[in-house]
Amino acid sequence: MSTAPIFRRVALIGFGLIGGSIARAARAQALASEIVTTARSEKTRARVTELNIVDRVLATNAEAVQDADLVILCIPVGACGPVTQEIAPHLKAGAIVSDVGSVKGAIVREMAPHLPANVHFVPAHPVAGTEHSGPDSGFAELFIDRWCILTPPDGTDPMAIEALGAFWAGMGAKVETMTPDHHDLVLAITSHLPHLIAYTIVGTADELAQVTSSEVIKFSAGGFRDFTRIAASDPTMWRDVFLNNKEAVLEMLGTFNEDLSKLTRAIRRGDGEALFEHFARTRAIRRGIVEIGQDSAAPDFGRPHPPLKKAE
Amino acid sequence: MSTAPIFRRVALIGFGLIGGSIARAARAQALASEIVTTARSEKTRARVTELNIVDRVLATNAEAVQDADLVILCIPVGACGPVTQEIAPHLKAGAIVSDVGSVKGAIVREMAPHLPANVHFVPAHPVAGTEHSGPDSGFAELFIDRWCILTPPDGTDPMAIEALGAFWAGMGAKVETMTPDHHDLVLAITSHLPHLIAYTIVGTADELAQVTSSEVIKFSAGGFRDFTRIAASDPTMWRDVFLNNKEAVLEMLGTFNEDLSKLTRAIRRGDGEALFEHFARTRAIRRGIVEIGQDSAAPDFGRPHPPLKKAE
Repeated sequence: MSTAPIFRRVALIGFGLIGGSIARAARAQALASEIVTTARSEKTRARVTELNIVDRVLATNAEAVQDADLVILCIPVGACGPVTQEIAPHLKAGAIVSDVGSVKGAIVREMAPHLPANVHFVPAHPVAGTEHSGPDSGFAELFIDRWCILTPPDGTDPMAIEALGAFWAGMGAKVETMTPDHHDLVLAITSHLPHLIAYTIVGTADELAQVTSSEVIKFSAGGFRDFTRIAASDPTMWRDVFLNNKEAVLEMLGTFNEDLSKLTRAIRRGDGEALFEHFARTRAIRRGIVEIGQDSAAPDFGRPHPPLKKAE
Repeated sequence: MSTAPIFRRVALIGFGLIGGSIARAARAQALASEIVTTARSEKTRARVTELNIVDRVLATNAEAVQDADLVILCIPVGACGPVTQEIAPHLKAGAIVSDVGSVKGAIVREMAPHLPANVHFVPAHPVAGTEHSGPDSGFAELFIDRWCILTPPDGTDPMAIEALGAFWAGMGAKVETMTPDHHDLVLAITSHLPHLIAYTIVGTADELAQVTSSEVIKFSAGGFRDFTRIAASDPTMWRDVFLNNKEAVLEMLGTFNEDLSKLTRAIRRGDGEALFEHFARTRAIRRGIVEIGQDSAAPDFGRPHPPLKKAE
């Protein structure tokens, strides 16, 4: 991994799960000579100061970006446009401006028009996260072996792309480049639709007349609890994802609904063969994910199982 | 936990994830003086003999149940009727006959008519599992702190219910009793619908024109990989679940579809408030599951994260 700082000063705007994990990983790997940050609420800023994992916590976005070589917006997608407008006059010439948003087409549309010509804009999306949020939720290992997708506009300085890629690689991520539109399609199926479905079913379970909420919670080990983890993700972040990747999500949702109708019909007709064929096929996809190291092979995600007490 | 064997001889028909876990747990806790088993394929029987975790591996179901005080069918729901018919003439008077099926109404309808009047029928469903199957997949800790639901028909001898409950409690499970119909509704939402949805979306992702399968696998850490774990469950078992709990699954599916349409409409209209309200509500359900110990509080299911190598 890295042997010298890649950037002199890195400014993180926002200090939630992702901002906080970047701060911890970049410090652990000495990827920046100085890491400064800010957050919208005074409470978060006070907590970050207390945690003592960045060099300086500043009160405003304008102060934070001053003299920074790399500025990363670690805030919900919907806030990126206004914040870019706010920081634009304070950016250093030659600075790299990036983000961590789960949507890229909208990010380019919202951020690019505000940025001066003398900075490099390299949008990024680390495909990593947990169901926790806030300044305490981050950890230095979050990005290890996860992909970080860069979606630089045509004509972006290759040196800027390379430097940002090296920064992410230094935190353990694998780096890939694609167009914003393709990114948004890929993530619509690998992330946005799964979240929407999980949010839906957890809501459905909560409102049933025939089964109580406490029964749902009690007997959740049959599969439901896996969905609740995803449906516990940050509501603001996810609201913004769906508002900003509407087309791709609706398109994937259309295909999903067709497939669900097909399986529903097989159940209604008692077509065991069609069900078996479908269920056997999906098993192979899991194998692919485990094989390329994107999930643990341990059963049940490697969830802890307490030991049996020996009989006396 | 237990201090003396609850049963003299326990017969396990079938040795997959659940049968194999019962064998390991019952032996570890000395819940039976003797555990005998059988499996349909010669290959599985040979493997179980090799594993050396039961007292005897028998070639036929008839031999296996002979003189057994407790017989547990650990086979897919669809096989329970024919196997009950097969073993019925060989059951010992006073024996307890049980199963581990994820559906209970159909089990009662399929098994009860074949059973002689001098045995006790206590259907059971341990709400526990992993995505693995086969004789090597079981482990003694699988049932710890998980619920085992008993659905004895009216008029079942309370002593038989108690003995089976003590056996499950001895393996670390919590025991609850309910009617078969209510069980099937509860499990339709906490287990069967989540599996159906996961099987659907993983199939959808595999067939897209715009996004390749290798991209889906590569960028699965955004949520999709959680679904693939569920969609990697045993296809035969799940085919039988859907064929045998049709009514309840279709009912829950109807409610789910209404809720999905509601969220889809909010996305289409850009109604951020409705999305936020829904996403914030579902977070609380996760908290409930973690609080009562039905899942780990560790982020990301406690998935292993390799450490960052220190920069040199």
